[in-house]
Amino acid sequence: MKVIIIGGVAAGPKAAAKIIRLIPDAEVTIIEKDKYLSYAGCGLPYYVSGEVKEQKELMCTSVGVVRDSIFFQKVKNVHVLTETEAVKIDRKEKRVLIKILANKHEKWLDYDKLVLATGAEPIMPPLPGVDLENIFALHGVHDAEGIKTLLADEHAKDMVIVGGGLIGVEITEALVHKGCRVTIVEKMPQIFSMLDWEIAKLVAEHMESHGVKILTNTEVKSFKGEQQVKEVITDKGTLKADLVIMSIGVRPQIKLAKDAGLEIGELKAIKVNEKMQTSDPDIYAAGDCVECVDRVTGKSCYMPMGSTANKHGRVAANNICGHEDKFPGVLGSTVCKVFNFTVGRTGLTESMAGKQGYAVEVVMAPAPDKAHFMSDAKPLLLKLVVDKKNRQLLGAQATGPGDVDKRIDIAAMALVNKMTVDQLANMDLCYAPPYSPAMDNIITAANVARNKLDGYMEGVTAKEVHAMLEQQKDFVFLDVRSPGEYAEVRLPNETLIPLGALRTRLNELPPDKEIIAFCKISLRGYEAALVLKAAGFKKVRVMDGGVVMWPYEKIK
Amino acid sequence: MKVIIIGGVAAGPKAAAKIIRLIPDAEVTIIEKDKYLSYAGCGLPYYVSGEVKEQKELMCTSVGVVRDSIFFQKVKNVHVLTETEAVKIDRKEKRVLIKILANKHEKWLDYDKLVLATGAEPIMPPLPGVDLENIFALHGVHDAEGIKTLLADEHAKDMVIVGGGLIGVEITEALVHKGCRVTIVEKMPQIFSMLDWEIAKLVAEHMESHGVKILTNTEVKSFKGEQQVKEVITDKGTLKADLVIMSIGVRPQIKLAKDAGLEIGELKAIKVNEKMQTSDPDIYAAGDCVECVDRVTGKSCYMPMGSTANKHGRVAANNICGHEDKFPGVLGSTVCKVFNFTVGRTGLTESMAGKQGYAVEVVMAPAPDKAHFMSDAKPLLLKLVVDKKNRQLLGAQATGPGDVDKRIDIAAMALVNKMTVDQLANMDLCYAPPYSPAMDNIITAANVARNKLDGYMEGVTAKEVHAMLEQQKDFVFLDVRSPGEYAEVRLPNETLIPLGALRTRLNELPPDKEIIAFCKISLRGYEAALVLKAAGFKKVRVMDGGVVMWPYEKIK
Repeated sequence: MKVIIIGGVAAGPKAAAKIIRLIPDAEVTIIEKDKYLSYAGCGLPYYVSGEVKEQKELMCTSVGVVRDSIFFQKVKNVHVLTETEAVKIDRKEKRVLIKILANKHEKWLDYDKLVLATGAEPIMPPLPGVDLENIFALHGVHDAEGIKTLLADEHAKDMVIVGGGLIGVEITEALVHKGCRVTIVEKMPQIFSMLDWEIAKLVAEHMESHGVKILTNTEVKSFKGEQQVKEVITDKGTLKADLVIMSIGVRPQIKLAKDAGLEIGELKAIKVNEKMQTSDPDIYAAGDCVECVDRVTGKSCYMPMGSTANKHGRVAANNICGHEDKFPGVLGSTVCKVFNFTVGRTGLTESMAGKQGYAVEVVMAPAPDKAHFMSDAKPLLLKLVVDKKNRQLLGAQATGPGDVDKRIDIAAMALVNKMTVDQLANMDLCYAPPYSPAMDNIITAANVARNKLDGYMEGVTAKEVHAMLEQQKDFVFLDVRSPGEYAEVRLPNETLIPLGALRTRLNELPPDKEIIAFCKISLRGYEAALVLKAAGFKKVRVMDGGVVMWPYEKIK
Repeated sequence: MKVIIIGGVAAGPKAAAKIIRLIPDAEVTIIEKDKYLSYAGCGLPYYVSGEVKEQKELMCTSVGVVRDSIFFQKVKNVHVLTETEAVKIDRKEKRVLIKILANKHEKWLDYDKLVLATGAEPIMPPLPGVDLENIFALHGVHDAEGIKTLLADEHAKDMVIVGGGLIGVEITEALVHKGCRVTIVEKMPQIFSMLDWEIAKLVAEHMESHGVKILTNTEVKSFKGEQQVKEVITDKGTLKADLVIMSIGVRPQIKLAKDAGLEIGELKAIKVNEKMQTSDPDIYAAGDCVECVDRVTGKSCYMPMGSTANKHGRVAANNICGHEDKFPGVLGSTVCKVFNFTVGRTGLTESMAGKQGYAVEVVMAPAPDKAHFMSDAKPLLLKLVVDKKNRQLLGAQATGPGDVDKRIDIAAMALVNKMTVDQLANMDLCYAPPYSPAMDNIITAANVARNKLDGYMEGVTAKEVHAMLEQQKDFVFLDVRSPGEYAEVRLPNETLIPLGALRTRLNELPPDKEIIAFCKISLRGYEAALVLKAAGFKKVRVMDGGVVMWPYEKIK
């Protein structure tokens, strides 16, 4: 059996290796345009930062062997053609026209099965000056080298990142640590469009506390400079720039597939079935060039991820070798390091769920990520989105210095199994003080969701409270923390009555006004609301997330 | 409604607080024998070590308020009687006889609903000398204080821990850090009976590398000393001992329940239904005094855990207040810090599964817990136990310096949802280099399981190979690592042919002998086996877990 694989970064090499394991005498050839093969693209920000010392490490196996053409030939028995372009697919004759870039020599290669692992390319908007030197995407090894070279230049200090998405944020830390002034320019009202507004705001504040300038609602109009970029012109003004990194997203590379008449999905990526088969049963596609199914909504989505590409490659290989295997789809599970915060998400955000027509209940659950008496316990701010109709989890987001990725992965497991918050709340997760609170953060969050769904707790978002304050609405903004906590930090226009004193000081509260209770994390706020309701107060709500998740200015 | 709760550590206070939240005017009374209330028992080892500075911290809320009687009264509206014993339950009259310990005064309290949260007590075997001073369990605050006082004595240096279970191991680190010589005496052939033999062995080796002496297959016969213990006499010899900690397990406190004629389960804990109701519908029980259901086997089990007690308390409270809630059972999810290793487990071990009659496939998957090019990636040794019949995960164990708890929790989520390894392998877990490999460790492990179940890989345990070596069986023990790795460490009687050279050196291998291939983690070992089988070698197996998980002596 002859298999040609076009693309040598993640899905391609994975498929190749698996095919050879299943059918040792298959003839497998990888075609790769670049000279580099099988590198860890997600590691590039860490190569720029110097955390990864040598480029080579991103191309090594875990025991330090470089995955080059020789490695693939000797160890995997896979033939690799680098610096070779796949020009055209002839589906009728089942062959691929390739061009060796060094000498422009072209030839046809026959296949029984073909795998398209052509990946994605960064979107470079056709703005004036976008071709100036020192404007990079962070897409491949070449970009990383270019950025590193520039960082070595002591005069280059002003860096502009266009687009506040994953890659832009990941590289920011590296640039700040090198002593650069970094500005992120984002067209939308928030960075991190994968997150809900208030979680993104908490992350943005954290970045700002590390000296990063974030300009939202700001659009880049052009780039200026002689040979090299010197300025970024936006609709709000001009920014100095010795380096620009474009991070406004990627676009699936589908030209080959389109030219060959393969079906392209509504999101402009290659359409595949669960077996990773395209509309031509002898042609498979995998990785960043294909459309996936969203496991929560069941709809098509485009979520390019290195982890998904690897799984795609394996599923395609299994099916090519006659072993039925199905890829069930993705959740958009994402994690990212932002200075000493982690940011993570899986499933739907509140905003996405709204667009999809779900009626949702939302929980903000800030808490220490370990037993609170452990000295290394760190705050973890968790948000759950729950389907009001059937009480199933729809999505989770988290940020903070705490252990985010564990809770996001637990949520991901709940999502694929359509678990309700009731089921989640009684999960037997492992507990010891150095690892989690006795009731894990996600269990506490699930219980808060149950309280809300059952009508014991009526929440109100910080955003709504903030708007009420701005509009000078008449309500009591009731802080039930201790005087010590109040002295440290408080919210605007608040009234302090510590929870322990509340039962004896009820007469200080107007019976007719709305009361919005809160505390540090709004657990005591919840208890206060119950006390007030039991005492006959009619309109009592609890502010989600408390002081910890208040995304506006605080009084210190 | 009058509710009496007997027991004030974990399940009791939780139930009390939840009842008041649901029914603010309920009269809730907690009866606690001790003077301390609602303390984090799992934190005691960290109090002994000094990680937790003050006893008080174990009794505080996360914002530093001590949960004493006054706190419960003022904040929770729960009445608490400490240093008060529940002597007898009169089910007919629905009342409890209590005794105030200070003045021996007895009186009856009426209840509408009663919650038994009487906990468990450490097992103290009736050995000669067990009553000597300085023999402690680590069960409550008093034990912790006693141990701390002794540790402050510079002469006390020899510590013997009887029983190699969770508590014994957790306290060991604290004692070693204080400069003590610690010996663990274990009657069984291994410490950590919650783990399979070879995982326990890896943990034991790690402890030994920190100077801990571990004596397995050793039984304590008696304790000797004047007033204070000085020696521990075992069937293998005598050990010096300034301090002895008994850690051979706990026993549910069921006397009150038994005397009241409530049904006791086959495992000698209080029998409850899913609602946490005992055989008397007005009496609930929760926490360490009850039997649970094992969610994997569906059978009764006794697994006392602080995390479970909290959930029990909530479920009991919900049902008491008329809101149906069901506790679905437990998985035995456990995690424990052992010096710079973490040890975790959920579901069935291979040994437990065997006893339950399951035919299992087993996977050993050692790998870095993060992208291998990250400088803080740490080894994680993962074992999965899979049901051969339906490919469902039955259990997971992990150890090493890597991020164990995340993978154990993911496995726990898979267990309750009866997920197959095929489903697990295509999970969209969150990925970025600082958090996991592109294919998470548990996904890789699931894929190895699939390879084994599908017949592509025949594994052999290190134990079996070790026995074959001892018996001088005739086979080739084929190491396919690099010469550099070989120079660093190797296994007895091995033959080195690096994987990259294998295809050209096949003639060096005898075609008729069995070949057992391995490498550092046995991924290359697996590829070698496929190469050999493709070349016509008939009997080829792969040693599970490779050099990394070889639990015997290595040649350096």
